[in-house]
Amino acid sequence: MASGRILVAQGGGPTAVINQSLVGVTLEARRFREVTRVYGALHGVRGIIDEDLVDLTQETSHNLELVATTPSSALGSTRDKPDRKYCHEIFNVLRAHEIEHFFYIGGNDSSDTVRIVSEEARAANYPLRCIHIPKTIDNDLVGSDHTPGFPSAARFVAQAFAGANLDNAALPGVYVGVVMGRHAGFLTAASALGKKFPDDGPHLIYLPERTFEIERFLADVKSTYEKYGRCVIAVSEGIHDASGAPIATLLAKEIEKDAHGNVQLSGTGALADLLCDEIKAKLGIKRVRGDTFGYLQRSFIGCVSDVDQREAREVGEKAVQFAMWGDRNGSVAIKRTGYYSSDYELLPLEAVAGKTRTMEDEFITANGTDVTDAFRLYLRPLLGSGMPDAFRLRPNPVAKVLKR
Amino acid sequence: MASGRILVAQGGGPTAVINQSLVGVTLEARRFREVTRVYGALHGVRGIIDEDLVDLTQETSHNLELVATTPSSALGSTRDKPDRKYCHEIFNVLRAHEIEHFFYIGGNDSSDTVRIVSEEARAANYPLRCIHIPKTIDNDLVGSDHTPGFPSAARFVAQAFAGANLDNAALPGVYVGVVMGRHAGFLTAASALGKKFPDDGPHLIYLPERTFEIERFLADVKSTYEKYGRCVIAVSEGIHDASGAPIATLLAKEIEKDAHGNVQLSGTGALADLLCDEIKAKLGIKRVRGDTFGYLQRSFIGCVSDVDQREAREVGEKAVQFAMWGDRNGSVAIKRTGYYSSDYELLPLEAVAGKTRTMEDEFITANGTDVTDAFRLYLRPLLGSGMPDAFRLRPNPVAKVLKR
Repeated sequence: MASGRILVAQGGGPTAVINQSLVGVTLEARRFREVTRVYGALHGVRGIIDEDLVDLTQETSHNLELVATTPSSALGSTRDKPDRKYCHEIFNVLRAHEIEHFFYIGGNDSSDTVRIVSEEARAANYPLRCIHIPKTIDNDLVGSDHTPGFPSAARFVAQAFAGANLDNAALPGVYVGVVMGRHAGFLTAASALGKKFPDDGPHLIYLPERTFEIERFLADVKSTYEKYGRCVIAVSEGIHDASGAPIATLLAKEIEKDAHGNVQLSGTGALADLLCDEIKAKLGIKRVRGDTFGYLQRSFIGCVSDVDQREAREVGEKAVQFAMWGDRNGSVAIKRTGYYSSDYELLPLEAVAGKTRTMEDEFITANGTDVTDAFRLYLRPLLGSGMPDAFRLRPNPVAKVLKR
Repeated sequence: MASGRILVAQGGGPTAVINQSLVGVTLEARRFREVTRVYGALHGVRGIIDEDLVDLTQETSHNLELVATTPSSALGSTRDKPDRKYCHEIFNVLRAHEIEHFFYIGGNDSSDTVRIVSEEARAANYPLRCIHIPKTIDNDLVGSDHTPGFPSAARFVAQAFAGANLDNAALPGVYVGVVMGRHAGFLTAASALGKKFPDDGPHLIYLPERTFEIERFLADVKSTYEKYGRCVIAVSEGIHDASGAPIATLLAKEIEKDAHGNVQLSGTGALADLLCDEIKAKLGIKRVRGDTFGYLQRSFIGCVSDVDQREAREVGEKAVQFAMWGDRNGSVAIKRTGYYSSDYELLPLEAVAGKTRTMEDEFITANGTDVTDAFRLYLRPLLGSGMPDAFRLRPNPVAKVLKR
């Protein structure tokens, strides 16, 4: 390597372990004699063109370890997607600071950013090694067994549904929990890992991989409610009809037509509320409650998978090794090598960028409203150690004296 | 005591530690030679009149300890509030099973239930020792330093805001988190304990103890946003105008008038969404997100205060001791005896039942949108050990080469 200066940045939605990757890059890079400076850009590529850089070489190892355990992007993030002009502004800044290594921690959009930067650098003859480091709670990067950040968010969702199920059992009714994931249902499916006893919820799981039909949904809820006297439902925010139109929009239109006016539905609680309204109105069930997990599921401090933390650290470390000892740009991917053990490889950027993985058919039951044992086996080791567990009183009924 | 049979039940909204109190009662009662049976009623007083009783004497100590660590009412709960007729049905069942001790674990409504049952028993000449065991995440029982269940819910809220603040710092904008508590703002105020650095959120806290004015709210948000480039807001679901009308209703009316139709607002995400819409419309801020913490804050498995767990166990134990060695009915209350240490006393039922504690003035700052150090000192020890902590990179800016 020529300059000895490397740059790392974080893009897209934060995760609980994204700083592990940042610290993995920083500490590993500092082990290489030829690396003279590790810079961080504030708020992703935006910080590069604004020349908002910080020197991570001056940070202590101790504080880096503390930051590693803190959720959400410590350098700040961005949703910016560079075009050619934006890229040339990036190269201007990198050239001015003699930076020839670019590490970008992010999801789908960020992998595409790295691809664009990589291609434009080649076209502009700027010598830049570009490595994409994966993170996304959606678990929707192709080529990876799973993505850092997903296991911790999945753990939050599983714990949330384990608790919501207990709450719903104490005061029976219908509970709808809406989970993030516009195209991929992995995070919503993680709700199934909160289930312990056969009659536990979630009893129904609705994924964006399957078409959502409101009439079938209501029939499912009705029969579950008749069977258990209650019903816990996990819904992906991305559920849609056969034409691909989001259900939130469709239900909103219905209500709009009733009201002959404009109902604003920009808030995040809308889908849960609308589904609850449908259940109340059509099934006549009184106690119907909806929660939208919102930002809690990706940023809650104190709910994290130790497996996820270790792997997020390792993808950062491996990214530096691939850059220093390899000869090509790429995207770091996790391979599963045992139950449970993992290794890392560098995929071509074109194999990852702009592509979306969705849940494999083998992970979804035939009826479309539950996950298979294959999915349970896939996810369980990722949730990490110390998963809280729910216990019940054993049945010891007292014989009735007054009534039979 | 005459019969040797005691009955315990759980009422109202579940908490993370309500089973600690159930197990406290059960294990402590089993130590008394004169207790022959410990019965539990399923779904509160409703289980008594339905004669749905279980024999907790047959449960193993090991399983009881596991149930104690499980959130939400293991016996099930109810919102039923007995009148005289209902009470006489209760006495019929108790008489049939020779039960002369009644322990009821619950909040405000449940304390009133115990008072009614106690008075009706006296009037009906039925010899019944009635003890109310406190629990409520709202912390709104008078006479107690705090109530079991509140510390764990407060911990969830503090952790949630610590994470939401980090998320908001990475992708700046306005974040509104709506917290439970219709009359008392303690749980919303707990959001302040998620704050570490001076510029951390929540920057604004809106409590039901103060009148909410939408214009002042918008001005507060505007000035905070101008100062920090972002704004994290904690809002109690119970905020209301000067006349006491809930803000959710008022904002709903506004939108209803605009739309000339009927907008349904029964869903739980409504208040957050409406406040977000106001901020977007009136302040022109683009990135505005709202979360409603909903049932997660009271039932999430795996987020619990160890102090809360111990105290919830102790109120159950002390309830049995007060019943066995005392001579009157009452409500168990927590007294603070040191920083931090607590003891228990038995208050008259009339001193607790049907009364609502709200946040003391000394806990709220003069401007009404923050808590005082007195509140921080009050709450901190209750959150327990092992609170997760957030860390930041120290500022080490790289000198700009291109721009000044």
